[in-house]
Order: sequence, then C-alpha cells, then structure tokens
Amino acid sequence: MKKLFAEFFGTFWLVFGGCGSALFASQIAPSANGQMGILLIGVSLAFGLTVLTMAYAVGPISGGHFNPAVSFGLMAGGRFPVRELVPYIIAQCLGAIAAAGALYIILHGSGSIDFSAPGAFATNFYDAPVYFEKSYSMGAAFLTEFLLTAFFLIIIMGTTDRHSNGKFAGIAIGLALTLIHLISIPITNTSVNPARSLSQAIFVQGNALSQLWLFWAAPILGGISGGLIYKFLLQKEHEISESV
Amino acid sequence: MKKLFAEFFGTFWLVFGGCGSALFASQIAPSANGQMGILLIGVSLAFGLTVLTMAYAVGPISGGHFNPAVSFGLMAGGRFPVRELVPYIIAQCLGAIAAAGALYIILHGSGSIDFSAPGAFATNFYDAPVYFEKSYSMGAAFLTEFLLTAFFLIIIMGTTDRHSNGKFAGIAIGLALTLIHLISIPITNTSVNPARSLSQAIFVQGNALSQLWLFWAAPILGGISGGLIYKFLLQKEHEISESV
Amino acid sequence: MKKLFAEFFGTFWLVFGGCGSALFASQIAPSANGQMGILLIGVSLAFGLTVLTMAYAVGPISGGHFNPAVSFGLMAGGRFPVRELVPYIIAQCLGAIAAAGALYIILHGSGSIDFSAPGAFATNFYDAPVYFEKSYSMGAAFLTEFLLTAFFLIIIMGTTDRHSNGKFAGIAIGLALTLIHLISIPITNTSVNPARSLSQAIFVQGNALSQLWLFWAAPILGGISGGLIYKFLLQKEHEISESV
Amino acid sequence: MKKLFAEFFGTFWLVFGGCGSALFASQIAPSANGQMGILLIGVSLAFGLTVLTMAYAVGPISGGHFNPAVSFGLMAGGRFPVRELVPYIIAQCLGAIAAAGALYIILHGSGSIDFSAPGAFATNFYDAPVYFEKSYSMGAAFLTEFLLTAFFLIIIMGTTDRHSNGKFAGIAIGLALTLIHLISIPITNTSVNPARSLSQAIFVQGNALSQLWLFWAAPILGGISGGLIYKFLLQKEHEISESV
Repeated sequence: MKKLFAEFFGTFWLVFGGCGSALFASQIAPSANGQMGILLIGVSLAFGLTVLTMAYAVGPISGGHFNPAVSFGLMAGGRFPVRELVPYIIAQCLGAIAAAGALYIILHGSGSIDFSAPGAFATNFYDAPVYFEKSYSMGAAFLTEFLLTAFFLIIIMGTTDRHSNGKFAGIAIGLALTLIHLISIPITNTSVNPARSLSQAIFVQGNALSQLWLFWAAPILGGISGGLIYKFLLQKEHEISESV
Repeated sequence: MKKLFAEFFGTFWLVFGGCGSALFASQIAPSANGQMGILLIGVSLAFGLTVLTMAYAVGPISGGHFNPAVSFGLMAGGRFPVRELVPYIIAQCLGAIAAAGALYIILHGSGSIDFSAPGAFATNFYDAPVYFEKSYSMGAAFLTEFLLTAFFLIIIMGTTDRHSNGKFAGIAIGLALTLIHLISIPITNTSVNPARSLSQAIFVQGNALSQLWLFWAAPILGGISGGLIYKFLLQKEHEISESV
Repeated sequence: MKKLFAEFFGTFWLVFGGCGSALFASQIAPSANGQMGILLIGVSLAFGLTVLTMAYAVGPISGGHFNPAVSFGLMAGGRFPVRELVPYIIAQCLGAIAAAGALYIILHGSGSIDFSAPGAFATNFYDAPVYFEKSYSMGAAFLTEFLLTAFFLIIIMGTTDRHSNGKFAGIAIGLALTLIHLISIPITNTSVNPARSLSQAIFVQGNALSQLWLFWAAPILGGISGGLIYKFLLQKEHEISESV
Repeated sequence: MKKLFAEFFGTFWLVFGGCGSALFASQIAPSANGQMGILLIGVSLAFGLTVLTMAYAVGPISGGHFNPAVSFGLMAGGRFPVRELVPYIIAQCLGAIAAAGALYIILHGSGSIDFSAPGAFATNFYDAPVYFEKSYSMGAAFLTEFLLTAFFLIIIMGTTDRHSNGKFAGIAIGLALTLIHLISIPITNTSVNPARSLSQAIFVQGNALSQLWLFWAAPILGGISGGLIYKFLLQKEHEISESV
C-alpha cells in the first residue's frame, strides 16, 4: 500500500510541478525593465526536478516510476512484476488527476481560464501551430514520443543496473526528463508519460481528448522497446535487480 | 550554540542569495545587443542553491533547516525535538533580517529605493497584479503555499530517511526549492518560508506586513501536514532518525 | 559487441538530444505573452545532459566516450587500447548519423526544411556570420575547438583517475560539455566531437562538408594534447586505470 | 610541482570558461525568430561549472583553490600552510593571464575589439552604469564582494570538513560560485577572485586597473573572515583536515 501512496504523491508532484510551472510561470509579458518568466528551459528543468526530488524521497519505497510507460518498460526489461502493473498505473493516474484538479483550482483563483487554444492547460498535441506558424505532423509526433521514451527507459534500466552507480540514478533519470523536454516541448508539449497526458486532457476535453491515444500508444511502445533494447543489447548478464 | 550559528548563517544566505538575485539581477532592460539578466529561472535557481550549498556546509551541524516551516514539519514528523523549536526559529528570523539589512544597504548604494509597488524588495504578496494584469486570489495563494510546503517536507522527510541515500539529500532538497520557485514566483513571489517573508516585510511595511499572516500560516500548516503525511503514509516503519 | 552498442546508442543520444534541442526548441518567435524557447543556454544544457545521462546508463559498459576525440585522447593518455579505436569510432559515427536521420525525418514532418544558411541543421561552421554580424575566423575557430577539447580531456582523465571520486565523473564530464557549449556555440556551433560534426554535415552538404576537416582535426589534436598534458603534468603516478 | 600545474590549469579554465562565456555568448541581438544567447544566467552557470569540473578533475592534486582569496581564507581557517601561499597565488595569476591572452586572440579573430566601455572584456567595475542607468557605489561593491567571498569560504570550509560528505564538496562549491554570480554580476561583474580580476584588467588597462585594488582587497578580506568565522563559530572541534 505504501508503494501505491508513493506513486500517487510522486505523480501528483510531477504534474503539479511540471505542468504548473508551464501554466503559471513560463509566460510573462516582456516589460520595459526586462522582467521575464522561466521560459521553456524553466519548464524543462521543472519536469526533471519533480522526478529527481521524488526519486530520492520515495524511490526507495516504490521504485519511483510515476509514469505508466516506465512501469511497462521496466516490466518488459524484466525488472517489474506484471501483477503490480495495473495498481501502479491506477495510482499514477489518480495522482496526476488530483494534481490537475489542484492546478485548475489555483488557475480559477486568477479569474482567467480559457481552454480553447491547442496546448492549453499544458495539454499535449500534434498537428497544431502552438509555438510556431508551422506544426509537426502526427507521424513526427509519434516518432518523437516513441524515441524519447525508448531512450528514457534505456537510461532508467542502465542507471539502476546492478553494475552501475545506482545512487546516482535519481540525478540521471530526473535530468533525462529535463533533457527530453528541452528537445520536444515545441513538438508535442512533451508527454512520454500517459498519466500526465490523461490528467490534463480530461479537464480540457475536445482535441486534447481526441489526440490522447497517441500519448498512450507512443510512450508505452517506446518504453517497452527501450526496456527490451537494454535487456538484450546492453545488459551485461540477464538478471533481476531492483530498480531505484 | 553552534547549531544556532549554523541556522543564522544558513538563513542569512538563503535570503541574501535568493532575494538578492531577484533584486539585483532578475530585471535588466533588454538592449539592442540582447543583454538580459537571469530572469525568474535564475532567481529560482539561486534560492535552491542557497539551500544546496549550506546543506552540505553546515547541514551536519544543525540539520540545515533555515526555515521555520521546516522545523515545524520535522517536529510533526518526529524528527526534531520540540524544545529546540523556538531557538531555531529565532536564529532563522535573525539571520533573515540581517540579510535583508545587508540587501537594503547595497540597494541604497545604487541610490534607488522605491518600496511602493506590490512585490517590491522581493516581498511576498497575494491579490496583486505584479507579473500579470491578472492577480491570484488569497485562496489560490494559500493553497499554493500550503501544497508546496507540504511536498517540500515530504521530500525532506523522505531523502533523510534511514532507508534513503542520505548523502544526496542536500541536492534533492535544494533543487526542490528551485522547483518550488519555478512553479510559484508569479503567484506569491514564493515563500514556503516564514522567516524569508518576515525579513522582507519588516523593511517594506504596508501591504507586505498586512499580508504577512498568510506566509506564516500556510507554510507552517503545510509543513506540518507534509511531515505527518510522510510519517503515517510513506515511512517504512516508525522511527526517529536524524535529519540531514 | 555490447561496448559498440553502448557507443552507438550513446552517440545517437548525444546528437539527437543536443542537435535536436537546437533545431526544435532554441528558436521561438517572441510573442505578446513572453513565450520563448530554451535559448542557447538550453542547448548547452541539453548537450551536457546527453553525456551525463548516458555516462551513468552505459558508461560501465563501454567507458562512455561517444566521441572520437575522446577515444583518441584517452588512447594518448594511456587509458584506452589502440586496437579498439577504429571500432569505437565507427560505432560513434554510425550512431550520430542515425540520429541525424531521425532528426531529418521529424523536421520533414513540419514541412519546413531549408539547409541553405550557414549553421543550418546545427552544423558547425567558421568564418560565417550566424549569430552576429561579425564572424570568427578559421584560426579563432581552430584555437577554440583545440583548447576546449584539450580541457575536456584533462577533465575526463582527471575525474576518472584512480585517485579521484570516480562516481562523480559522469556529472563532471557531462557538465563540462555544457560549459563548453556555453562558451563556444556562437563561435562554431561547438563541435569538440568529430562524429557530431560529420553526422550533420553529410545531410547538409555544401560548406558544412568543405569545413568539416577543421572539426575533425582540431578536436582530435586537442584531445590528444589534453590526454598527454594530464598524463605527464598532472597524473600522480603513471598508471593504467579504467575510464568511467 | 604538480600542485602548481593543477592550480595553473584550473584557474586558466575558470577565466577562459567564465569570462569567455560572457564575451562570446551572453549577448546576441534578439532576432525575429527569437534566437538569444545564454544571458547572465548562462554566464553564472559557466563560472560555477569551471570550478565544479576542475574540482573533481584536479582537486585531489592541489585542493582546487583556483583563487587567491580561497588560498588566503583556507590559510586563515587553518587548512592551508602559509609557505604554499605565494607559489599558489603566482600559479593562479599566471593561469588567469594565459586564459585572458587566449580570449584576446580569439576575440581578435572576429575583428572587433573595443575595450573603452566599463565592464568590457568582462572586467570588474564599480560606480559605472553597465547594466542599468543607475550604478552601484564603491561602498556597495566592496560590501557585496566582501560578503560573497566570506560565505564562499564558509561553504568551502564546511563542505570539506572532516565531518561532511566531502565527496559532494565539488558540487556545492562550484554551484556556490554560480549562485554568487546570479546575485552580483550586475553590481560588479562579480569577482570574489583577485586572479580573475587581474587577468582581465591588465589587458584593458584604464579604469579596470585603477579599480583593481577593490577586487583584491574585498575578496581577500572576505575570504579571511569566512575562514575565521567557520573555524571559531561553526567547526565542531579545532582540527586540521585536508581540503578538497
């Protein structure tokens, strides 16, 4: 049960911190004195730090997945038992949705909620001109999410391998998520995490819901691929080790 | 006594570095050559690094709280004795006020001090349009400060747990404070620390003082909640371990 | 064979993450609400994090070079056997080229590819006014790439020395690459890595190919110099230790 | 002798990386597509990373001072023998000057050198309107440099104390230098390091030379104060431990 609480609070923190920084602080109108917000680099840093901080705080309890694609990938890589998959994913989705609810309440306190534009409420998207006049196609979005989640799992599998400096895994995995956002926010607002995509989409509805399938399919397939790539091409010997 | 010196210098550094970076370096008028300051992401980084650096420097001496809400939360979580609470808080507030005094002297040396605008001198605020035309209500500010301090304490309790990689706690806790600022500077200028709010408010007076109650109540209640959540929902077994 | 897979995936990640962040996220037109991308600081961070993350993930497998200049430098410093040099470099170049191909496909999915400007597709350059009206000469570019790669190798040799805290090497080496980009993106788009230069140039052709020689010669000569400087001026005793 | 080489290369890297990032990459004219440089936050990060990287690379050889004020402060704190003070400072100044020479050559390769403005070539300054219309007085500059160097030494003494997690000292000390720059670049261009101030001033001459006294006096006095504060108010017992 403590494992599921850990996944709940960890995924809450991921969505509240990552999506929250995007909603509250990424956009500030440039003024005469040069005041500006945290930009997309700040949002990238925020997402990574949610995982880095919770990996060290509750990672020893649950393994610190906070992401259904990670749970699928670790299962494929032989590091996570199948019977725990569904409870973990439920706890992750509940944590994400609770965080989105808290974000909604706080935004409501500023009196301005307009969810009509693509990418609003930090939802994921494809084929929509959010940051540029151009937009990235569904195929480009799928490939991006697939590849990034695959490498995310290679990094998670590798840094928690029995032969690695496992104590540094939280730093490497958290900063990997920062890196992933530095690459791909302008393409899809970056998912690599179906729970994070779900929580924002159910508040916004519309296109965010109709495009949600991609942000479950691509990360989960990518995660499974990454787990298998590490297990069969990189892992020194086949082993079951506990993830960190 | 060395514990109290450690808390004094640590909280001085938190206010001098965090509020100082905001006052001196966050705003630089954009010029033709693109020179700009550190933006709100730089202020967020600065606050976190004050704690990261002092956690490794004097954390082994005092536990490295630098924040009354942290002392309250650790007490609630069973990691800090009640009898040390008041001396710690006094040392923290004195360190914060001394730092605010040093910032005031340096600002005075640039000949320009105007404390009339909300948020001036890095004071905390609610219901004031500081970064946007809109402003966040008192309720939104309270909820934000409460939630962020609660998670801050979950992270502190977790990373210093006997079962954790305690040596990494300073990194995780410091970067958690960076993350907290990445989320909430535009909402309240981010407190999660009553001493930091007090020190700026007593120089500015006015609204900063009349709104100060929220930046004591919300962080302390949040800190206590976080301590209790960790202790009863996440901690592997009930134990007393020394914080780092 | 696992070593070569590790070098392949590591260099793929370096190019996909570093060049990808530059292509997708560094440039976003400033809008009325202050939305901006990750700037050159974000690109610098991304390059460094590719190495930091993969150093902890697959460093224990292959040593984590991901860069022909590093392999040459470690060979010169007595830490890497000559017989593995060519296979490593081939794996690195193949990984880099595969990543450039993936970037090309994703860019194609946004319908806008124009490789005519200097520096396009994150290619390296000299004597071209990419970020300024002025440009840096071939000599300045060579000296910059030479010096930065030499210091990169001093840091790699030093942090993986038997007398060092080897577990921190991945952090120091990754962040050294971030630092190198913070200095030199405006001068050459920063190479210090012949495989990364090759992969982008073969897609763009033209000037990128005709200037490619410098981004092999300067980093390799710099890397060898750095390896020798560490070995003869800094290393406590002559020894063979395994790199991390 | 290896100690002096380590200090030479370390201080070279500090000046080349820190001042270099300021000279080459901090200012890029904003263009229609939003391309911008690394801003002052990037310069702050660069300075810190020079120390973080070299602390892990050559810190085990020389202790990793790279700064006369650090050598003075550690001597005052009882961690560094008087007889090594002068050789260390000479090696540091030579390394800094060599780096400034390399920066001069590279800048010359872009055909544009104008050292007439205050703060040019990353020189330190006071009483000059470099980033704002206002400027900070000599007294404000002195107090800032004094306080920041004192806290820098408290952090160095604390993180390398026998009772501390010494292996993390390089991270904490490097990021402390980043923090120091986040606070004070707009005030003085940040020195806290007499060798770094000297190396830039001797190329620029003029006001940079006539104001140089402050950037020796304030950091050295601050460093000595920090060393003494740690030794007498914070250190658990009087001891001689090796610095890292």
